[in-house]
Amino acid sequence: MTEAEFIAALRALPLHPGARGLEDDAAVIAGLVVTTDTLVEGVHFLASDPPGDVAWKLVATNLSDLAAKGARVEGVLLNYPLSSDAWDAAFLEGFGDALREFACPLIGGDTVSMPAGAPRVLTVTAFGADASAPLRSGAQAGDALWVTGTIGDAGAGLAIAQGPDGPAELLDRYRRPQPRLGEGRTLGPVVHAMMDVSDGLLIDAERMAAASGLSVTIDLGIVPLSPALIGWRGYDRETRLAAAIAGDDYELLFALPDGETPPVPATRVGAFAPGSGLSLTDRGGPVPLPASLGYEHRV
Amino acid sequence: MTEAEFIAALRALPLHPGARGLEDDAAVIAGLVVTTDTLVEGVHFLASDPPGDVAWKLVATNLSDLAAKGARVEGVLLNYPLSSDAWDAAFLEGFGDALREFACPLIGGDTVSMPAGAPRVLTVTAFGADASAPLRSGAQAGDALWVTGTIGDAGAGLAIAQGPDGPAELLDRYRRPQPRLGEGRTLGPVVHAMMDVSDGLLIDAERMAAASGLSVTIDLGIVPLSPALIGWRGYDRETRLAAAIAGDDYELLFALPDGETPPVPATRVGAFAPGSGLSLTDRGGPVPLPASLGYEHRV
Repeated sequence: MTEAEFIAALRALPLHPGARGLEDDAAVIAGLVVTTDTLVEGVHFLASDPPGDVAWKLVATNLSDLAAKGARVEGVLLNYPLSSDAWDAAFLEGFGDALREFACPLIGGDTVSMPAGAPRVLTVTAFGADASAPLRSGAQAGDALWVTGTIGDAGAGLAIAQGPDGPAELLDRYRRPQPRLGEGRTLGPVVHAMMDVSDGLLIDAERMAAASGLSVTIDLGIVPLSPALIGWRGYDRETRLAAAIAGDDYELLFALPDGETPPVPATRVGAFAPGSGLSLTDRGGPVPLPASLGYEHRV
Repeated sequence: MTEAEFIAALRALPLHPGARGLEDDAAVIAGLVVTTDTLVEGVHFLASDPPGDVAWKLVATNLSDLAAKGARVEGVLLNYPLSSDAWDAAFLEGFGDALREFACPLIGGDTVSMPAGAPRVLTVTAFGADASAPLRSGAQAGDALWVTGTIGDAGAGLAIAQGPDGPAELLDRYRRPQPRLGEGRTLGPVVHAMMDVSDGLLIDAERMAAASGLSVTIDLGIVPLSPALIGWRGYDRETRLAAAIAGDDYELLFALPDGETPPVPATRVGAFAPGSGLSLTDRGGPVPLPASLGYEHRV
C-alpha cells in the first residue's frame, strides 16, 4: 500500500475534528498544535550518522512543523528503542542539546527493547501553543511564494555524509537542522499559507498549490543558494535544480499577497495563479520538470 | 543502558510540569491526559499475530492507560510503518474496529517506509479528557488493594498463540484486550491510587506500593482467575502464581480505604501497610516471591 493509499483509508475511519481531514502536517487538540514524526534508520537517517545528530534531527523536524504553524513550543514526547550503551548515551546528549537549544521540555514517552540487529525507529510528538498560522491551503491567486534561508544545503550535506569531502557547514545543515521557530511566530499572523520545506522545495510548493487549488511557478534562478553550496557545487542549472528537489531544508515556505514584504529575511521564489500544477522557469525561460520533485515517502 | 537508567538520564533533562517527573504512565498537557505506547514485532507481539489484532492491541493498551486515569477518550495519533498490502489492509480493519468500539477518533499521525525485513514498530499516542483519578503514588497504609476482572487469561492466551491448543476465550484476552474505560471513569473519583495491570499483577502492585512509599501483601488464593483458565490449567499454586506474574491483563488495580466497597465489580486481593516491598501469601500462608514478578522491559 502506498502512503497516499494508506492515508486515504485512514480518512474513512472516525476522525477527530482537530485532524482537519488528515490534510495538514499538524492537528489541533485542546487548543494545542500537535505533530508527530518517526525517523527510521536506513530510511530517514544513516546508520553511520552520529547518534547525537539523529536525536537533534528528530526534535528539529518536529519543531519545524510547529514553526510552520507559527506556534510556541510547549514540549515533546519521545518513543525510544534502547540499544547499546554508547549509542544511547550519545543520543541522550544530542537530545538534551536540542531540548535546551529550543527551550523544549520533555513531557513523557515510552522506551522499548528491539530484536537484535533491527533498525532503530524513533518517534517524537511535539506540542505547540498559540498557533497563529493558517492552513497550507490558504494561498490565493496572485500571492507570491517566499522561502526563508537557503535551499539545498542539507541535500549536499547528505551527499557529503555518504562519501565525498565537502564543507562542514553543509554537513551541519543536514545533521543539525534549525527549525525556524522565531520566523514562524512572526510570519504566522501575516501569511496566507505556510509549511516547512522538508521533502524538497518543488514538491512542497506543489503541495501548497494543490491544497490551495492553484498553480504555482518557481524560478530556479532566484532560489536562494548558500555561498557554501555554490562554492562546492558551482552555480549551473544542474546545481540549482538539485537544490530545489533536495529534502531536509526545514526552511519556511509561505504565501504572501503580491507586493507585500515579509517581516523576516526571505526570498521571493515564485507566484500562485489560477489552475493547477507546478511550472518551472530559470531566469525567465521555461524549464522542463524533473522526473522527481522531491522526497515522496514521508508526510 | 537499561530502561531504568535511560529514564533516570531523561529526568536530568528539562522536564515539562505535566511530565510529573516521568513517574507516571501518563502526562498532563493543556488539561488532557496523554500517554504513548510503542509495540515492537518480536518483542510485544508475535510476527504470527493477526495484523488486525495487533492494531486492536495497540489502541487498547494506550486506552487502558487512560482508563487508569479515569479519563474520557479524546482520540489517538498513529505512527505506522507501511509493509505489505495484505498486512496494511488487515491492520486497518482491526484499527477501525478498535476506534469504533472505543468511540476513539483518529487525530493524526505519520506513516513511514521500513528497510526490507525490519520488524514492525508501531506507536499510538492517546489523549484523554476529564481525568478523575489520582496518581499511582496515592495509596495509604491500611488501604485495601483491589483488581477488576480476572488475572492471567492473556498470559495463557500468549502461550496458546505460541503452540498448544487452548480455549479461544483465553487467546482472545491476549489478542483483543478490553481497556476498562467505564470502570476507570467510575473508580477515578473514589480511589486513592489506580493503574492498569500491564506487566503482571505482582510487579504492578509492587510499583504502586513503591510509588506510595508502602509495602503491599497479596494473597494468591484470592486472586481472581477465570473459569476458562482454571478449566485449562487447573487451580494449583503454580497456576495461581503464573497468572499473577503474567502480563497483558489490562485490568485496573486500585487502592481503596479499608472497609469501602468499590462501585464496580472487583476483587480484593491484598492490602497496603507501612514499610516497603511485596509479600505474598496463599490462603493465609507465606509464599516465597518468584524470581520474576512480571514483565520488566516495558513502561
